[in-house]
Amino acid sequence: MTEVDVLVIGAGLAGLEAARRLTAAGRSVLVLEASDRVGGRTKSHALSSGEVVDLGAQWIGPGQDRVAALVEELGLHPFPQHCEGKKVLDLGGKLRTYDGDIPSLPLLGLLSLQATITRLDRLSAEVPLEAPLRAPRARAWDAMTVETWMQRNVLTAGARALVDIAVQSIFAAMPSEISLLHFLLYLRSGGGLMRLSTIRGGAQQTRLREGTQELSRRMAERLARPVLLDAAAQRILQDEAGVTVQHARGEARAKFAVVAVPPALAARITYDPPLPGARDQLTQRVPMGSVIKCVAVYERPFWRERGFSGEAVCDSGPVRIVFDDSPEHAGHGALVAFLLAEGARRAGVAGMAGTAGAAEGESVEGVEGEAGARRAQVLAVLGRLFGEEAQRPLEYVDKDWSEEPFCRGCYGGVMPPGVLTAYGDALRAPVGRMHWAGTETAVRWMGYMDGALESGERVAREILAR
Amino acid sequence: MTEVDVLVIGAGLAGLEAARRLTAAGRSVLVLEASDRVGGRTKSHALSSGEVVDLGAQWIGPGQDRVAALVEELGLHPFPQHCEGKKVLDLGGKLRTYDGDIPSLPLLGLLSLQATITRLDRLSAEVPLEAPLRAPRARAWDAMTVETWMQRNVLTAGARALVDIAVQSIFAAMPSEISLLHFLLYLRSGGGLMRLSTIRGGAQQTRLREGTQELSRRMAERLARPVLLDAAAQRILQDEAGVTVQHARGEARAKFAVVAVPPALAARITYDPPLPGARDQLTQRVPMGSVIKCVAVYERPFWRERGFSGEAVCDSGPVRIVFDDSPEHAGHGALVAFLLAEGARRAGVAGMAGTAGAAEGESVEGVEGEAGARRAQVLAVLGRLFGEEAQRPLEYVDKDWSEEPFCRGCYGGVMPPGVLTAYGDALRAPVGRMHWAGTETAVRWMGYMDGALESGERVAREILAR
Repeated sequence: MTEVDVLVIGAGLAGLEAARRLTAAGRSVLVLEASDRVGGRTKSHALSSGEVVDLGAQWIGPGQDRVAALVEELGLHPFPQHCEGKKVLDLGGKLRTYDGDIPSLPLLGLLSLQATITRLDRLSAEVPLEAPLRAPRARAWDAMTVETWMQRNVLTAGARALVDIAVQSIFAAMPSEISLLHFLLYLRSGGGLMRLSTIRGGAQQTRLREGTQELSRRMAERLARPVLLDAAAQRILQDEAGVTVQHARGEARAKFAVVAVPPALAARITYDPPLPGARDQLTQRVPMGSVIKCVAVYERPFWRERGFSGEAVCDSGPVRIVFDDSPEHAGHGALVAFLLAEGARRAGVAGMAGTAGAAEGESVEGVEGEAGARRAQVLAVLGRLFGEEAQRPLEYVDKDWSEEPFCRGCYGGVMPPGVLTAYGDALRAPVGRMHWAGTETAVRWMGYMDGALESGERVAREILAR
Repeated sequence: MTEVDVLVIGAGLAGLEAARRLTAAGRSVLVLEASDRVGGRTKSHALSSGEVVDLGAQWIGPGQDRVAALVEELGLHPFPQHCEGKKVLDLGGKLRTYDGDIPSLPLLGLLSLQATITRLDRLSAEVPLEAPLRAPRARAWDAMTVETWMQRNVLTAGARALVDIAVQSIFAAMPSEISLLHFLLYLRSGGGLMRLSTIRGGAQQTRLREGTQELSRRMAERLARPVLLDAAAQRILQDEAGVTVQHARGEARAKFAVVAVPPALAARITYDPPLPGARDQLTQRVPMGSVIKCVAVYERPFWRERGFSGEAVCDSGPVRIVFDDSPEHAGHGALVAFLLAEGARRAGVAGMAGTAGAAEGESVEGVEGEAGARRAQVLAVLGRLFGEEAQRPLEYVDKDWSEEPFCRGCYGGVMPPGVLTAYGDALRAPVGRMHWAGTETAVRWMGYMDGALESGERVAREILAR
């Protein structure tokens, strides 16, 4: 049986960062990964041209210092997300174009939207990052959904539609599924609604030429001991002297364990002795969001030639937002369309007529079943937004993260009302020799790659201090 | 390897009812139970006198025809829940007594309470039991918490406090944690708020001399094949011809499987092939409620002699409701106090200063840690409500259901906002050869023993029809 100082469960950014730091501090570390690859919720896909698109986490923005430093350290190549040109707004069945960050609405709608953004940022500033329950109205905010708040506070239908899309885009969940307190904490954690929603100056500012999964690949390569793949943790036994992890490929022993998977998946490991009730019940209450990312690749980014940025926002149909997803040196063009929350559920396996077909894959002409139907729906939307040419991609690939067995949703865990109040303390509190990482546990940039790194850094520090 | 027609996972009422019906129809059935006993969320505890108290599900009420028939068939002895006498209301720090079902409030509070009950029952009547999403305002109701509804619609603080306690008592969850649509469906499913809240004519009308766990014991005894205990299902493999279940004691094979555990626990089984995303995401979104039942046993039911029923309702402190829990032929007296939702969390292992001690057990004098502290808190409340004598029980026993490894909460799964809308269809829909039972899937008496039986009956019917 392998014996190390620390076993890390999960080879996403959180787990790998913990492993890296513990290794650097002289600890022996083994990382166990359930799937056949590292990277967790990052997944980069090579097009037939060899260029890479991200089917998972994609962007880096200002203020995300940890991931920026890592990119530099690992020698990856950042490049700006394309955003020059007109944006398309598909609202109430009508197509419009706009420039800047704020979509074109009638004056009242614009004022309402601006007031909402200001108000949310003011409220979120009242939520202490490390102790959200000390916000003056924490209990009241945690007792309502974001949807309830919007109905009371966003005054025009147009503004409501756009805030709704912004919430879906940031959380991959409906405003009805999210606690207002969790929402405000999340906004604060990432620097505000505008920063989370925008490209230039915002969380969608920068991409990586190699794709974001390359961060994890290179971190894994540099570890003293290779990541053990296909080694899903099944049981963690804890005794006076250490922990034993039974996994799909055997058993390993260590002084401490880092569980670097989202709470909803941490629930699926068996713990012996069983976890305290509060920690267990927390893991029942932080469901993963729902998103399908769909990438269509074209001969060239033809929309740019017509003055479009490739960005679009839609309030109906399966797609909510679209970005230019062209490779850095754009010979080819690409668009990425997000199916989010209820849109993702409808376009998922259960939602489509045919239930055969893979959850991920390059669709080919004549593909039947769910994957083919989804492709057709998405391309129809892109055609409506950017012209008929958009309906005939060279390649198309999509990924339904709810089908990924060891993620079961993206981008991350979302807290419904009441959870933060009742179980917030259990999110980061170690249980004996087990420490909890993952972007859901981050103080800053919760839900983002940067937050994952922060959490890995934190658990490494916790363990080194023992 | 054992081969049968149907494997049933979970020897609670749902699983055993399915097994019983399938057996009666000539199918061979093996029931796999994770723990060392049958009964699931029923658990009867023998006092030192030999008399029995229920630490889990306890009551049967009018309209629960399935469980009533089962009680008769199995030869168990129902007896009425004691409710004669004054009730105690501990509201806003003041003790009052009242008679009847509606606590004594100032006139305005009473009117507000009555209006709320009427209103809720009217709204819940609009929710079609088998298709809650067809309720006219289903989406709006599923986008808000019960707390939000109460703040808008319950006009006095006194009425709000009592509705809050009623919600906690019915769901073992805070009004902030529950979708209004799920709440209304649940009320409808059980016949209305008053029926769910009351003793005489309500869901707390009848107890069983032998305790409710005896239902499961006798059902299990009568099966052709004994229930396999300590056999937690770990993995369900499904192929063209059948299912293979890998469990803690080996492997078994069948044509079909019934998974008769709550959604949050069904999530912890590994499925091969993996479940469809919608079903998996559902299981991330139906957390178990939080309740600790505390039973104090006395020489005699001294409160009755003073004209008290033993019933109490409190809006502060750890306890929310108390009932007379005396054995049928009351030589001894007993009171059962419910710690609910946030009260249960605070009094749980993580919430108490000392974290040592068992989650369940007869406390003895001088017990340290969480169990002892909880006992002291509960007895202090009982003393305040019923006199100093209540502080000196002969026996005391409590059970924190969040600590039970194969329940992880009680009474049942509770849906936060947005879940029913997005995932309701996945609750009962079979996945290949797997059928889902459990009281969470019931149409009538969802969350109750009767609902568990209904669900067992339904899956048996589904399988027999294949």
